[in-house]
Amino acid sequence: MINIDWKPDKNLNKPLYIQIVEYFKEKINGGEWQVGFMIPTQRELAKIFNVNRSTIVSAIDELKAEGILEGKGKGGTKIVNNVSPLLSNIQPDWKSYIDEGIHIPNVKTIKKINTLEFREDYIRLSTGEPSSELFPKEDMKIILNEVAKDMDNLGYESPSGTMYLRQQVSNYLKTIGIYASPGSILIVSGALQAMQLISMGLLQKGSTVLLENPSYMYSLQIFQSLDMRRSGIPMDNEGVMANLIPDYIKKHVPSILYTIPNFQNPTSIVMSEKRRKELIKVCQKEKLPIIEDDVYRELWIDAPPPDPIKSIDTNGLVLYVGSVSKTLCPGLRIGWIVGPEPVIERLGDIKMQTDYGSSSLSQLTVGKWLETGLYENHLKEIRSQLTIRRDVTINALNRYFKDIATWEIPSGGYYVWITLKYKIGMYKLFDEACKMGILLYPGYIYDANFNNSLRISFSYAPIEELEEGLLKLSLLIKELVRR
Amino acid sequence: MINIDWKPDKNLNKPLYIQIVEYFKEKINGGEWQVGFMIPTQRELAKIFNVNRSTIVSAIDELKAEGILEGKGKGGTKIVNNVSPLLSNIQPDWKSYIDEGIHIPNVKTIKKINTLEFREDYIRLSTGEPSSELFPKEDMKIILNEVAKDMDNLGYESPSGTMYLRQQVSNYLKTIGIYASPGSILIVSGALQAMQLISMGLLQKGSTVLLENPSYMYSLQIFQSLDMRRSGIPMDNEGVMANLIPDYIKKHVPSILYTIPNFQNPTSIVMSEKRRKELIKVCQKEKLPIIEDDVYRELWIDAPPPDPIKSIDTNGLVLYVGSVSKTLCPGLRIGWIVGPEPVIERLGDIKMQTDYGSSSLSQLTVGKWLETGLYENHLKEIRSQLTIRRDVTINALNRYFKDIATWEIPSGGYYVWITLKYKIGMYKLFDEACKMGILLYPGYIYDANFNNSLRISFSYAPIEELEEGLLKLSLLIKELVRR
Repeated sequence: MINIDWKPDKNLNKPLYIQIVEYFKEKINGGEWQVGFMIPTQRELAKIFNVNRSTIVSAIDELKAEGILEGKGKGGTKIVNNVSPLLSNIQPDWKSYIDEGIHIPNVKTIKKINTLEFREDYIRLSTGEPSSELFPKEDMKIILNEVAKDMDNLGYESPSGTMYLRQQVSNYLKTIGIYASPGSILIVSGALQAMQLISMGLLQKGSTVLLENPSYMYSLQIFQSLDMRRSGIPMDNEGVMANLIPDYIKKHVPSILYTIPNFQNPTSIVMSEKRRKELIKVCQKEKLPIIEDDVYRELWIDAPPPDPIKSIDTNGLVLYVGSVSKTLCPGLRIGWIVGPEPVIERLGDIKMQTDYGSSSLSQLTVGKWLETGLYENHLKEIRSQLTIRRDVTINALNRYFKDIATWEIPSGGYYVWITLKYKIGMYKLFDEACKMGILLYPGYIYDANFNNSLRISFSYAPIEELEEGLLKLSLLIKELVRR
Repeated sequence: MINIDWKPDKNLNKPLYIQIVEYFKEKINGGEWQVGFMIPTQRELAKIFNVNRSTIVSAIDELKAEGILEGKGKGGTKIVNNVSPLLSNIQPDWKSYIDEGIHIPNVKTIKKINTLEFREDYIRLSTGEPSSELFPKEDMKIILNEVAKDMDNLGYESPSGTMYLRQQVSNYLKTIGIYASPGSILIVSGALQAMQLISMGLLQKGSTVLLENPSYMYSLQIFQSLDMRRSGIPMDNEGVMANLIPDYIKKHVPSILYTIPNFQNPTSIVMSEKRRKELIKVCQKEKLPIIEDDVYRELWIDAPPPDPIKSIDTNGLVLYVGSVSKTLCPGLRIGWIVGPEPVIERLGDIKMQTDYGSSSLSQLTVGKWLETGLYENHLKEIRSQLTIRRDVTINALNRYFKDIATWEIPSGGYYVWITLKYKIGMYKLFDEACKMGILLYPGYIYDANFNNSLRISFSYAPIEELEEGLLKLSLLIKELVRR
């Protein structure tokens, strides 16, 4: 795919189609666009450049005449030549490099969501991050002023994290029942990096990861990208069904279990206290380590969730993962892993080789939020805002979705997991919703079994768009049911 | 290895050895320290806890009597049991997880340097980062105030980088002869992450990377960790010997060439303009892509270096890598890759799966530095400071090293590459220097062929320590020659 962030200038004294021809040549000549890659369709180009279709036709004809583009119809138009014919066979075959790299690319629907999520004109019922309305702008200013005052240098820090932030995180963890010294805490660039480091540092290729089904898409992706197998265990309303684990272990010989015990992504299920005890007991017996992804813990609406599994882990069985991405803002890219020191040291070693540690500026900023108590205050505020958003969403669902779907009311977190009463093509629904300007996460990106479900996030879109989006979506679904 | 960040309290009404026993139990019981791992020697423990050796002996005897520790003498003392006997065989075998992960750990000397580099009491002739004396504290305050004013949200950004920073980098690149649109720029968390992404996204396991010999240790490490082969090409005083490349291609069938053309790490050699042209010509002919690691470019002392290889690349052959880590501060963790758009898109896709993008706060901060022109001002300042540091270093070498070593005077960058006239054991030198409190990079970490060389950085240590460190080091070397 080619990205175009330019438009021809209608005020210039030069025909638009010539401007476009020159733009193409510059891109291809500079090597930014490579031989063999497809260009967008004429219709797409007309939209991107904001010109008539006929202008595009003229430009493409010219480029074809010069031997720069080739092809048409279903196969599309592709770049065939460099502007200078002498250079035409000099380019490295980047396409084969891309196809053959170690890392497996993101799947198509996810890529599409990722691209569209940066478009302002969509109603984003998809996005799992706090709305800009929830961003604590004034407090962040206060914190940044503190940061500016205290900052003597921003040198390379220990790749495992600054001692200052690790100490602050250690203090914070005590408030949720986890006693961890700074040496057993690794600072990471978000929970996703935690999964990446754990996968690279502790698991072998072909290892099996046990996890809830459905589970967080990007964690799934990381395991998949690094050639891990995944085996999904069903959940009931108390969380993952721990009693099934011994059977899964016999069948799949897993290396680790991955769980999101609080306001699970995407189902919003909270694991009960009883289930947590059952889970740790069975995993202890089987010596199966646990990754506890607890990034939603603080986002409770009705009542605080049970203590972390880590808090009842007396054997270093649990790698506990937390972050400020869901509570404060994702852009700081700060999270943490708590675990046995040799494990933390090993992961820190890979972290060093991956990015030489997380941004010191971000670390200092998060440390200040924790130390000053402004973080605790902000959590109260975000909880009350999420309560409003959850209630608006459930009301809208009651009004528009009662006949066509079922759902549980989430007691915290960001998501409502909706299951349709009728079988409609979910790929179709996703595509049609996109066309209407509504983004959502269809169930099939989690697992083929959830082809009749979808995840709605109430954390991101402005409140009026939540309502509007759900209304439009319900009409679309009813329309698809009718067809 | 076990980390200890605690000391017994001499004011407490409890014997020190009992405090130590309780500390060990707490660590082991909580799972932070695992069965099978070694504890430090008695001498080390005495130092760490700041107590007499006899106190350590009492504590260890007690722990052995309780069946928690085992062993002594050469094999060392290790943790054998959990405090609660019932739990003893519940722990997962983390050691085997660590040993069998995909990623290959850092080699021993490098690990030692990494650990010691965070100790304040060493003279660090090793560290390749700007001294805190060079940190632009006042201007950073101005910038952070601007950042605080402008900041509306710190949400997830495009994983490829914020459009704002990519535009600023695009503008900056023009000043060094590179014309790249924002779409062909990927923001990364430092140049090291660039290498990681390129390796994971474009190279197959077992691929061969051609590079200068010697070359940047951490890039070497990344290639090695991801199972790439490396093949080093010799350099002369104009840079890597491009005329040898066709032979190397025949022999090793490399996938890519990695070069640091300016103030090369560790040799400080600058590739001549003629050699750059020769290099691009031969790589074009062989269709061999180039990674141009140009993080030292702006740190010229005597005269600006020739234009980047990327500036004479008309075919998208070169992936150009830059960063502010060496010029401004490493703690922001911001760098960039410039390349053909499909390549950038692929790398952005992996970046997304790795850490979901670099810190937005850091990106905004670096964007402001570039936009306001304060970056350009700061570069002038750092150049004049580096001139002083280079001159002090060369003067000290002339005084102390004339009889025992040779070197070229660097025309920029951070390093002097010193080759000893006499064969002494370099492992010995490294260890003895460590004991004297001096850190340096021995040549053997780059390649066994450079067992008689060492890299001295003049960027980091306070100026008086540069002098002192070099004097002491020269005395040590003379002593080792005499032995």
